Amino acid sequence: MPRITDLQARLFRVPLPEVMSDAKHGDHTHFELVTVTITTEDGLSGTGYTYTGGFGGRAILAMVNHDLRPFLLGQDATGIEALYDAMQWRVHYVARGGIASFAISAIDIALWDLRGRRDGQPLWRMAGGASNRSRAYRGAIDLNFSLDRLLANIRDFIDEGYQAVKIKVGQPDMRDDFRRAEAVRDLLGPDRAFMVDANYGWSVDQAITAARGFAPLDLLWFEEPTIPDDYQGYARIHDATGMPLAMGENLHTIHEFEYAVAQSHCAYLQPDASNCGGITGWLRAARLCAAHGIPVCSHGMQELHVSLVGAQPNAGWVEVHSFPIDRYTTRPLVLEGLHCVAPETPGTGVEFDWPRLSVFAVHS
Amino acid sequence: MPRITDLQARLFRVPLPEVMSDAKHGDHTHFELVTVTITTEDGLSGTGYTYTGGFGGRAILAMVNHDLRPFLLGQDATGIEALYDAMQWRVHYVARGGIASFAISAIDIALWDLRGRRDGQPLWRMAGGASNRSRAYRGAIDLNFSLDRLLANIRDFIDEGYQAVKIKVGQPDMRDDFRRAEAVRDLLGPDRAFMVDANYGWSVDQAITAARGFAPLDLLWFEEPTIPDDYQGYARIHDATGMPLAMGENLHTIHEFEYAVAQSHCAYLQPDASNCGGITGWLRAARLCAAHGIPVCSHGMQELHVSLVGAQPNAGWVEVHSFPIDRYTTRPLVLEGLHCVAPETPGTGVEFDWPRLSVFAVHS
Ligand SMILES: [Mg+2]
Ligand SMILES: [Mg+2]
Repeated sequence: MPRITDLQARLFRVPLPEVMSDAKHGDHTHFELVTVTITTEDGLSGTGYTYTGGFGGRAILAMVNHDLRPFLLGQDATGIEALYDAMQWRVHYVARGGIASFAISAIDIALWDLRGRRDGQPLWRMAGGASNRSRAYRGAIDLNFSLDRLLANIRDFIDEGYQAVKIKVGQPDMRDDFRRAEAVRDLLGPDRAFMVDANYGWSVDQAITAARGFAPLDLLWFEEPTIPDDYQGYARIHDATGMPLAMGENLHTIHEFEYAVAQSHCAYLQPDASNCGGITGWLRAARLCAAHGIPVCSHGMQELHVSLVGAQPNAGWVEVHSFPIDRYTTRPLVLEGLHCVAPETPGTGVEFDWPRLSVFAVHS
Repeated sequence: MPRITDLQARLFRVPLPEVMSDAKHGDHTHFELVTVTITTEDGLSGTGYTYTGGFGGRAILAMVNHDLRPFLLGQDATGIEALYDAMQWRVHYVARGGIASFAISAIDIALWDLRGRRDGQPLWRMAGGASNRSRAYRGAIDLNFSLDRLLANIRDFIDEGYQAVKIKVGQPDMRDDFRRAEAVRDLLGPDRAFMVDANYGWSVDQAITAARGFAPLDLLWFEEPTIPDDYQGYARIHDATGMPLAMGENLHTIHEFEYAVAQSHCAYLQPDASNCGGITGWLRAARLCAAHGIPVCSHGMQELHVSLVGAQPNAGWVEVHSFPIDRYTTRPLVLEGLHCVAPETPGTGVEFDWPRLSVFAVHS
């Protein structure tokens, strides 16, 4: 029973290579990274993390340091499921999602990293072990790009070897979305997979119109057509158009996933281990998807999800996100054809390049 | 267009007069109070606040100071609805409830306080104006009390003039809950209103058993029998037993209230302006309840809700909560028979006794 003797949390504010926009979050200039390193009495340590689109990092850090750290010190680090549930109940009154989900996620990932290091197991084996390979697609944040810039960007992705790409939609005039998506499909050709993502910028009725406009483009999925809270609205969009839908990056509790599998008629779900309760929360969502015959995908932090998605019997796709967290790790994502390949390193396989990151440290 | 020129947030950790317990949060020893004071260029200022059961205060403070304050400075303080929606979207990725709801609530209440002070209007008039009086009940946090202590406590409430009381349930042996509730009903007599609150300690099946056990006691409502996420579970409990149910203190977004009115079959809903988006969020929930014929009640912060509940055409009951925030204001709750009476002071009518509070200030 190796007790937790220390927990150190750090916040970084990392600039993006260029300004990136989507329909509901507007311009992104930075992402925030909160890392949590947990040490046990036997001298082992593990690191977990979460990220945001630029807001909330300080609040996550505050909750980790002031509400969760005092509870974790002295606990058995190997009892991950029990610690997960205890953390959820401890902060429940201010939680049920939101900042608490991000804080608990970072801690939970650190505990899994510790588990893997202690047991000599890579994450993809601990997480199910079906495969160490996952289908990967490149997700752009490109709503603000001109058509030329958009197509140049997609060309870059093709040159980098991607067989599947996703663009943002939600232009002021929806016909521009159709024109842009059509141009991207032409560039991709018929054999590459193509998805669009509206970041819940539309009403249900607008999304139905959009889905009809996208119908000729053979989309693999239409992501977050409307607000994530409206599960039955998703079902109306799907049922009216037959369009395969996807969501999940904004679902933070297992109860939200329960509503999504029961009511949304989504073809794919996309939990993000950085905001749905870490690896424990992601695996619970993945098992729920499996029970409903839904392929499980991921959102963001590809360097971690590469070890989770393919490991499931109901593996979907790993999003290779435009927040380049993996550029600040010692192992940027490994691509082989359509697939990304999980590391064999014991633990999560995500080791930060601390000197590179330290430039962006936020001191309180 | 009076622009916001300053926003000052403060955190206090206030000890309770004694240790209080409930079924899911365990022992309470303190509550946290986060105050937000907003000043406009014309020199007026208004104060809002939120509170927690002891966790999350630092995270709320961090979000107010780092994510919301920079946005608010320079904005028109009178455009409350627009600011409310803009704040929700700004932090949406880390929000949809949780800490963000508490942070936005404190700010929104400060903006309403400013509005009332500027317009010379008391809150009860701004909030609808149906009445300045609300039915009040005393809500105890007494799960850890012996039967003798429980009854002595209820006797105190009766002596203080309360005509309605609520106790906690969720003892390890449910028969103890029945015995305690029966003894309280005997003490109250048949004419006073009586409610019980399980703080979601039970499964749906356990709650059905409990509702049957409580059936002879003529409860006004059975509060939070099971987890707040399971709207349809609430309906199953109600439909199986006919017991009137109540919930709402854990619902943080208007979408959660939409699910509750549509699916839970609750007889009462209990939004809390400190965690559902302040006065703007509370009024939206109250209007939703009105549209569905549901009386709107409140949870906690009676010194504020006294001006909200009775002001509605569908007024329910104000909970007089055991976190005595109003003892740190210049106007502790005014009771007249069954009713509590709203202040006529322009603004929210909640003015903190800063010297009394300052002893409990948390410095970062
Ligand atoms: Mg997306
Ligand atoms: Mg309650």
